[in-house]
Amino acid sequence: MISETCGGAIVWFTDLSAAGKSTIASCVFEYLVARGIKAELLDGDVVRQRISRGLGFSREDREENNRRIGFVANLLARNGVVVLVSAISPYREGRDEVRRKTCVSFVEVYVSAPLDVCERRDPKGLYRRARAGELRQVTGIDGPYEPPIAPEITCPTHEEPVETSVDRVLRVLLPWLVPQSASSLADQ
Amino acid sequence: MISETCGGAIVWFTDLSAAGKSTIASCVFEYLVARGIKAELLDGDVVRQRISRGLGFSREDREENNRRIGFVANLLARNGVVVLVSAISPYREGRDEVRRKTCVSFVEVYVSAPLDVCERRDPKGLYRRARAGELRQVTGIDGPYEPPIAPEITCPTHEEPVETSVDRVLRVLLPWLVPQSASSLADQ
Repeated sequence: MISETCGGAIVWFTDLSAAGKSTIASCVFEYLVARGIKAELLDGDVVRQRISRGLGFSREDREENNRRIGFVANLLARNGVVVLVSAISPYREGRDEVRRKTCVSFVEVYVSAPLDVCERRDPKGLYRRARAGELRQVTGIDGPYEPPIAPEITCPTHEEPVETSVDRVLRVLLPWLVPQSASSLADQ
Repeated sequence: MISETCGGAIVWFTDLSAAGKSTIASCVFEYLVARGIKAELLDGDVVRQRISRGLGFSREDREENNRRIGFVANLLARNGVVVLVSAISPYREGRDEVRRKTCVSFVEVYVSAPLDVCERRDPKGLYRRARAGELRQVTGIDGPYEPPIAPEITCPTHEEPVETSVDRVLRVLLPWLVPQSASSLADQ
């Protein structure tokens, strides 16, 4: 059983809203659980409902939200779970802090779609509302985004299909989970 | 290895401050990890710092805090971790909600020390400050506590040594974790 030989890890997907973080993370999640690997998906929107109700989108509140996600992710990962975090997490220092503090593998996935592409997708209507002045502190519009300097993985989702991005993540991740059979798994 | 055969569980210690929840939970935690069983201790005070900063001690805030603990505990437990929650958690409905919503075993431990005993112990000085009018919404003084109606375990810590309470918990817990060897473990 793979699940009994693998260690935990934090795989942190970051970038603007609509860049494709949750789409890729969900596919990786499905892949892992289908193979008996313990995994959890911590989606930014869901986490806000469950442990960060009341926090807003100021720098201070986003940093607090980031720390909470890091706390939960670390608890799970140190117990052997592969934790897929999908959260805008715009501040570099916040992401780096989670990396520094965890005792497990930390894999940063920069889902790098340009703002204009994200804005055309806009499935939640966030950008439209930001442009109309109805929403403030929207990352990429009037809220900053600090891209990773040296992410383990970069997925340019405006230039490649989802499958390619998912494969990028799995090829980095699987050797850490099951050193013995990583290549055969990745090739399936 | 025990850790690879056991399932997760939520063991929820409830009662007044200074009743002995964290003391018992810590001993159970040490016992489990020493035997290779995955366990985490979610202490109420620590959790407030990590995921509930900003929440107070009103009914609404305590219920929100309780839900957050339940969310984290459930994530861990469904991944095979024995989660020891030590939190006053004064409202019955809040504890019952966690029980209803989880898919893992839920063991409620009522650490039942009378108020006057807790007040004599008072290691944090909470009761002294409450009696002096410096603190409000202190459970047992001007904040309600709703004891469990049918807890799986009751530990009257004013009438028994810590070892007896710890043994009560282990005797209920171990058969769920390792059905095959529970009695021999409990007798160690």
